[in-house]
Amino acid sequence: MGERHDAVEVITAKRDRGELSDSQIDWVVDAYTRGEVAEEQMASLAMAVLLNGMSRREVARWTQAMIASGERMDFTSLSRPTADKHSTGGVGDKITLPLAPVVAACGVAVPQLSGRGLGHTGGTLDKLESIPGWQASLSNDAMMRQLEDVGAVICAAGAGLAPADKKLYALRDVTGTVEAIPLIASSIMSKKIAEGTGALVLDVKVGSGAFMKDLDRARELAETMVALGADASLPTVALITDMSTPLGLTAGNALEVAESVEVLAGGGPPDVVELTVALASEMLAAAGVEGDPAATLQDGSAMDVWTRMISAQGGDPSAELPVARESTVVSAEADGVLTRLDALAVGIAAWRLGAGRARKEDSVQAGAGVEIHAKPGDRVSSGAPLLTLLSDEPDRFERALAALEGAVEISDPGTSYDPPPLILDRVTA
Amino acid sequence: MGERHDAVEVITAKRDRGELSDSQIDWVVDAYTRGEVAEEQMASLAMAVLLNGMSRREVARWTQAMIASGERMDFTSLSRPTADKHSTGGVGDKITLPLAPVVAACGVAVPQLSGRGLGHTGGTLDKLESIPGWQASLSNDAMMRQLEDVGAVICAAGAGLAPADKKLYALRDVTGTVEAIPLIASSIMSKKIAEGTGALVLDVKVGSGAFMKDLDRARELAETMVALGADASLPTVALITDMSTPLGLTAGNALEVAESVEVLAGGGPPDVVELTVALASEMLAAAGVEGDPAATLQDGSAMDVWTRMISAQGGDPSAELPVARESTVVSAEADGVLTRLDALAVGIAAWRLGAGRARKEDSVQAGAGVEIHAKPGDRVSSGAPLLTLLSDEPDRFERALAALEGAVEISDPGTSYDPPPLILDRVTA
Repeated sequence: MGERHDAVEVITAKRDRGELSDSQIDWVVDAYTRGEVAEEQMASLAMAVLLNGMSRREVARWTQAMIASGERMDFTSLSRPTADKHSTGGVGDKITLPLAPVVAACGVAVPQLSGRGLGHTGGTLDKLESIPGWQASLSNDAMMRQLEDVGAVICAAGAGLAPADKKLYALRDVTGTVEAIPLIASSIMSKKIAEGTGALVLDVKVGSGAFMKDLDRARELAETMVALGADASLPTVALITDMSTPLGLTAGNALEVAESVEVLAGGGPPDVVELTVALASEMLAAAGVEGDPAATLQDGSAMDVWTRMISAQGGDPSAELPVARESTVVSAEADGVLTRLDALAVGIAAWRLGAGRARKEDSVQAGAGVEIHAKPGDRVSSGAPLLTLLSDEPDRFERALAALEGAVEISDPGTSYDPPPLILDRVTA
Repeated sequence: MGERHDAVEVITAKRDRGELSDSQIDWVVDAYTRGEVAEEQMASLAMAVLLNGMSRREVARWTQAMIASGERMDFTSLSRPTADKHSTGGVGDKITLPLAPVVAACGVAVPQLSGRGLGHTGGTLDKLESIPGWQASLSNDAMMRQLEDVGAVICAAGAGLAPADKKLYALRDVTGTVEAIPLIASSIMSKKIAEGTGALVLDVKVGSGAFMKDLDRARELAETMVALGADASLPTVALITDMSTPLGLTAGNALEVAESVEVLAGGGPPDVVELTVALASEMLAAAGVEGDPAATLQDGSAMDVWTRMISAQGGDPSAELPVARESTVVSAEADGVLTRLDALAVGIAAWRLGAGRARKEDSVQAGAGVEIHAKPGDRVSSGAPLLTLLSDEPDRFERALAALEGAVEISDPGTSYDPPPLILDRVTA
């Protein structure tokens, strides 16, 4: 790996607001992956990066070094172009489920390597695992075959891609350094570049239910990631989207699968449809393919890909989905206009109901979650149901209800309220 | 320890420029000492403290928490008052050796708990261990008896004082967080307060051979420590002293003992005498005792304490000191005035000659080091010896000579050069 360095030299350079050299970055990422740089040394460096930042060159090199820590995949032997999407995570964000079939139905293959949920945002794999028989793990060969035959794969990322990122992410999680934009951007982009997708669309969420709480930081993250894509010759575009209220009318694993199937059948909540079509259009454009994503939801072609995609991974697309054993309803306390339904509160409630996990080793309940009966801008009547909470364990309701305190705001019936646009900005190289 | 906290909460509070509560500080120091807060978590917090600072209240509480992690000593049962000195470390800084006997000869007991050297500054215990038979380790009882009988003890600090500091110092050493002023100040002061001295004088060094390279930071450190002393009702005063050139005419273990004995015999280099007397005067004043430190060097009373102090710990004060087997001389390259003899370079040279250690487990050579034949301001003639390098291993000379490159500056014979004053400032509460 070229020149020899030592950890304290690299840490103090960043601590003192210096720019790390390519050689320092290559060395520290490699030495950390090998265990020569200790966890406490990387923790100190991560905090220095969080507080002192990184230049565009540094982030690009750091990303390259993380890619170099593991294997790279290559889809160029496929008969069609590829495009992938990454969301920074939100409440009710099931978009990957309808999106991958829509894009595949338009002729672009989607190799979606996903993760599990941690905390208040759900994981795509957790959602799909509520489908009886469905398997998240695929060999690289099986993934290639499915991409060629079906055009879409959603599966677990193997341990071989960017192992440095895996180690660093676990460290950041316990050392208060998750929020460093250079480290978030390089974590996401190293995996997506190593994965070998031909084009990438990023859904950077902003708002209470998102990781980024304000638009400026969301834009900074989007710009950093789009630049990293450009530096790696990966066509990348980002949409910045609102996450102040949940996406769609469900938050929970089986609930979100069911809602996704509604969308694939040509129905479903307008915001889920809007974002699915917008992200699909960006993916097609980035891959250089013309297509009409909205049409695939109406003509059954997206649903056809979905059925084959689920079946190919052992799932039964026509099986009934698990339903939670218990439920309780939250009702409107006044007549008026719903002016707030806080995404974070709903996400935490769904998590506490059993839809999410607090620690990696926890399991999730397939049927648990929250059904939403009114969205901001809707008129509501006193006593009408606003939310249905679902769980297999009724003793979870109390803490879920506590999470929802203050989450709902109903204004005077005369109030005129326009919800914010779903798509707030678009960032290109 | 009161309220429960978690490490990420404490780290993110400091990361986001918040002030840590008393309860957060108590918890994190205690939990770290017990191993509940992991090394990587404390490393991240230490970097956040380094970059975002601590308020006076936070540093005081942190210091108290470190003291509370271990035992406290108490010298109030002695028949005389106590005073101690701490130096932040410099090249040729043997002042503790003549100072403790001088102060004891004036009627104030000196309980000096010292450390070993690491890097380019020598350790007091390493120096004294070049005296045949001398032992650094004393039980608390033996220390008390010697303080009562002789009036001065220089010995190794036991593991019982501020164990949190011991653990944290080792961590800071490998994570680029040694330089955090709140952590330096609390590290020094927690040990000195736990040690139980009745008064404290700090020698805060500034210059190339010191830890603090500029006067502003040295003053900030001095002020922080003096305030911590005041908060703990420990009379504390600090002198800020020059460390741009070595103290005295020697850097090395046995060499510095021999020079200290010269000072105790009424001779020795003027700068060593000046600083010894100045620090002794401050210690007497802080302890509330009148005395004439300079006189004790002339009337043999300080030498008498020295002899008894060394003998009490098994040393033979009249034994010949070890001498290095090999030597080489660095000569002046021109006629003129010596205008620079860099402290750091001389310190590194002595270290490389075998006088210091790179890792805690290394041993040191008693006879190795540097003899200085001219100091800044002195006239020198071309070819005259400037330095003698001493080592048991002649293959060490090359790297020592490399360290000295650029360390010596000889200006035109007509140059008028006034060296900076030795004592730059005095800081009181």
